[in-house]
Amino acid sequence: MKNKRSKRPLCIGEYLIQRLRKLGIEHIFGVPGDYVLRFYDMLTRSDIEVVGTTREDCAGFAADAYARVKGLGAVCVTYCVGGLSMANSIAGAYAEKSPVVVISGAPGMAQRQRNPLLHHKVREFSTQREVFERITVANTALEDPSRAFEDIDRVLDAAVRYKRPVYIELPQDRVLSVPETRTIRQVSLPGSDGEALAEVLAEATQMLRSAKRAVILAGVEMHRFGLQDELVKLSEQSGIGVAATLLGKSVISEAHPMYVGIYEGAMGRESVRRFVESSDCVLMLGAFMSDINLGINTANLHMGQCISASSEEVRIGHHIYQNVGLGDFVQGLIEAKIRRAKRKRPAVRTKLGAYKVRPKAKITTDRLYKRLNHLLTKNTVIIADIGDALFGAVDLVVRERTEFISPAYYTSMGFAVPAALGAQLARPDLRPVVIVGDGAFQMTGMELSTIAARKLNPIIIVLNNKGYGTERVIWDGPFNDIYDWQYHRITDVLGAGQGFEVSTEAELEQALNAALENTEQFSLLNVHLSVDDHSQALNRLSKRLASQVRPTSGGKK
Amino acid sequence: MKNKRSKRPLCIGEYLIQRLRKLGIEHIFGVPGDYVLRFYDMLTRSDIEVVGTTREDCAGFAADAYARVKGLGAVCVTYCVGGLSMANSIAGAYAEKSPVVVISGAPGMAQRQRNPLLHHKVREFSTQREVFERITVANTALEDPSRAFEDIDRVLDAAVRYKRPVYIELPQDRVLSVPETRTIRQVSLPGSDGEALAEVLAEATQMLRSAKRAVILAGVEMHRFGLQDELVKLSEQSGIGVAATLLGKSVISEAHPMYVGIYEGAMGRESVRRFVESSDCVLMLGAFMSDINLGINTANLHMGQCISASSEEVRIGHHIYQNVGLGDFVQGLIEAKIRRAKRKRPAVRTKLGAYKVRPKAKITTDRLYKRLNHLLTKNTVIIADIGDALFGAVDLVVRERTEFISPAYYTSMGFAVPAALGAQLARPDLRPVVIVGDGAFQMTGMELSTIAARKLNPIIIVLNNKGYGTERVIWDGPFNDIYDWQYHRITDVLGAGQGFEVSTEAELEQALNAALENTEQFSLLNVHLSVDDHSQALNRLSKRLASQVRPTSGGKK
Repeated sequence: MKNKRSKRPLCIGEYLIQRLRKLGIEHIFGVPGDYVLRFYDMLTRSDIEVVGTTREDCAGFAADAYARVKGLGAVCVTYCVGGLSMANSIAGAYAEKSPVVVISGAPGMAQRQRNPLLHHKVREFSTQREVFERITVANTALEDPSRAFEDIDRVLDAAVRYKRPVYIELPQDRVLSVPETRTIRQVSLPGSDGEALAEVLAEATQMLRSAKRAVILAGVEMHRFGLQDELVKLSEQSGIGVAATLLGKSVISEAHPMYVGIYEGAMGRESVRRFVESSDCVLMLGAFMSDINLGINTANLHMGQCISASSEEVRIGHHIYQNVGLGDFVQGLIEAKIRRAKRKRPAVRTKLGAYKVRPKAKITTDRLYKRLNHLLTKNTVIIADIGDALFGAVDLVVRERTEFISPAYYTSMGFAVPAALGAQLARPDLRPVVIVGDGAFQMTGMELSTIAARKLNPIIIVLNNKGYGTERVIWDGPFNDIYDWQYHRITDVLGAGQGFEVSTEAELEQALNAALENTEQFSLLNVHLSVDDHSQALNRLSKRLASQVRPTSGGKK
Repeated sequence: MKNKRSKRPLCIGEYLIQRLRKLGIEHIFGVPGDYVLRFYDMLTRSDIEVVGTTREDCAGFAADAYARVKGLGAVCVTYCVGGLSMANSIAGAYAEKSPVVVISGAPGMAQRQRNPLLHHKVREFSTQREVFERITVANTALEDPSRAFEDIDRVLDAAVRYKRPVYIELPQDRVLSVPETRTIRQVSLPGSDGEALAEVLAEATQMLRSAKRAVILAGVEMHRFGLQDELVKLSEQSGIGVAATLLGKSVISEAHPMYVGIYEGAMGRESVRRFVESSDCVLMLGAFMSDINLGINTANLHMGQCISASSEEVRIGHHIYQNVGLGDFVQGLIEAKIRRAKRKRPAVRTKLGAYKVRPKAKITTDRLYKRLNHLLTKNTVIIADIGDALFGAVDLVVRERTEFISPAYYTSMGFAVPAALGAQLARPDLRPVVIVGDGAFQMTGMELSTIAARKLNPIIIVLNNKGYGTERVIWDGPFNDIYDWQYHRITDVLGAGQGFEVSTEAELEQALNAALENTEQFSLLNVHLSVDDHSQALNRLSKRLASQVRPTSGGKK
């Protein structure tokens, strides 16, 4: 394996590893199981490092974060008990366009014929693959060696092209199979349709040139497709300011002079809302128009005045252009050298509000975030779980791009701690600050085990309000209460890390300083918050959600 | 709700709750989320108790165990982030025929039209349902109120009839919908085809009468379909001894005089293997012929001499009868009053081997199980996770039927701790003894949180050998090592329970006595075992598995 350029033909397992390595994969996450042990053994002897997690879904979240930071992530698990345990985390990567390669072992082809009831089988041998068909953009089961290399290429190309997860099933008796014929690799990434591109660019530049109050609304695809530099160039050259969606937060440095703020309808800051909604031409670039990005549908944008370009299509007003690449479109806009008079942009809080410790004051959500804003450096990556961990984090000023990671559309609880594992392995120079609710921490927080094993040093802030805080605002009931853990004592179980209990501002100060000082291991802050203490954003958002959950007319259809 | 016999017509949510309650559901497991809050609120005000778990997959395992003990289980979760997180535990219930009703909230029908990108959505609104179609025996999305009651009936009937999970999706704006027309409930449980039943009974009784060495091999379906009394009656009356499959362990009291032992091919005890394989007529009743039940295919049974009846079909030799109910078939055999001379059965270890504590001796797997055998009473339920937790537990003598719970076919790690929650809520008179490997405990052991919250008192035995012990025997590598937890200190995190560290027989004694004495809370024993210490069964089984994972000819297809 180790780059010995032998003439020996590669077997399927070796080819797969070689391709992953060339696509930048240095770590693969997962839990071993008997149907995949042969391939694990091969991985162990390769240049790719196997990172064992406590659970498969955590491997999925870690690989998702790894992909967001590094461009591609991978997991490797066993059949059904392993793969199906990841259905949710891979579905989340699909929804938010994070390219994760799922590799699952499977019973050998010979075994299957002799024994219809092999362990881990659910229904048919194809059941797991059928499930993953629904939550990945391409899939293959490498049953036929003569097609295996081609299938691997096809599926990996799809992950890179569409920035979505793919599924590769590897029967255990195919790992060592050497195909007799080798198909020459056909990379078929069709470019834009030249005529469609010319037409859409003509129309878009015309609209932007005649607009008086244009604005760019940048989304997460600009990050996924590596178009951050182009975004800055387009904005600086044209003089058009850039707002970002919630999912796209930090796609441009929030300290950049052209940055306007996060736009999320009525949920966000009023000045940003007014600036965007008063625009006569909103240029959306790689932005998902999801309900949470749109402030639970409080956004008031007129499609007739919008240009929306994504990896899937370009939409101007009410008509659609297909076969236009997002990168080609942005590049074309840059080359058109549009120049607009600069609009007065709303004051962005790039200057941090002063924070003076009130030692005896009970810590609140609002004060916690104000304090965290001063913690961030160029070497910090913020990883926000959902609920107030996300909504409160919106106002943190991220100084570099790509330093904010959160499942802001799919909003799956429990993403953040395993994501810290993935993000820090992808970028060891960054120190994650993880903000996570107590309910979410109970789901996956024990993945700190792997973080401890690898001596990583994230700072984990547990927002402990004894329950599902977002839901309390929407519809409260006893089901929103959770059993209280001594989260800071997880260090006793893991025999590693520093734990702190924080109730006052003085304790917060002490704990953060100790955490910053100790870069050898993780720190966990168990921050006690009142049950009724929420960020302003959560209050606004939850009220809006509540009105949808309890419509006034609930009765007959 | 509370049984007020009002004439007010029921809404969909109320009808569903009423039907579940009538089918014996007293607890429903899950994690709330915004799309299902309205229904959670309704549950809270009903006779069904909501049991919040830390994670959805744990809710699935708990409901599975609840169903095994009580006949039907139920979970209630939110859309996609909740439902997809349960894919593995529900797949396991499907594979092992445990009837769990999955109820998932979903976006309101009105909401969907206005907003294509609602949070938690993966791909299509139907994605989650399509996934569950593959791992349940019936499903419905209650989108059309006029069909809702009928659909609920159809799906719940399928769960009861086929003893497999079913899926019910409940859009949030349908919970309060009152159908305008009520379909009269049609319970359509077709009985056996009378002629087929008569023919198969004639053939089977003839075979059994002429056999000289008949034996019954009883499987888990005898338990699922409540046929344990009939099994005992058939055996006592006919004089035919009963062996059980691994998955069927404890389907008959292991202290019963007609009991032969667990049959699992070459993996099990030699005397049982010889007794079963020398039989000239094996009557399999409700037995899955899975690889693990068959000792990883070391079983040597001649199909030409087998009668195999399950809920799906009856097979005699190489021909198949359909539309014959398992219960009708067993009843018919009883009525045929077959009497056979009793065969000399192998001595079954119903008498417990003496166990004398060697205080300073390091505890071993073998000695641990010998000691645990003396712990069991009529009020114990053994819950075994997979690996040596299962294989070692095979020789424990279960005095009552239905007191052994394990995912012995699907073998999903992490089943046991959440299963203890489900089993003890279903049968508060039983005290669970949970045997779980360290790797499995790291997956779901924190569900002790809910066990602590409810002051349940299982005794948890963690087999701590610092890794995936079964896999070490199959194919060892660094990937089988796991980070060592101070499992006994989880009591610090939960502020409840007793934790013990056990390295010697004296410490085991002390810990078990303290655990038995303290019935107010859970006890956890962190039992340190050598890395190379396995039960005899695991050694035999793993070697067999290893030969399949590494076949001698691994190369070209």
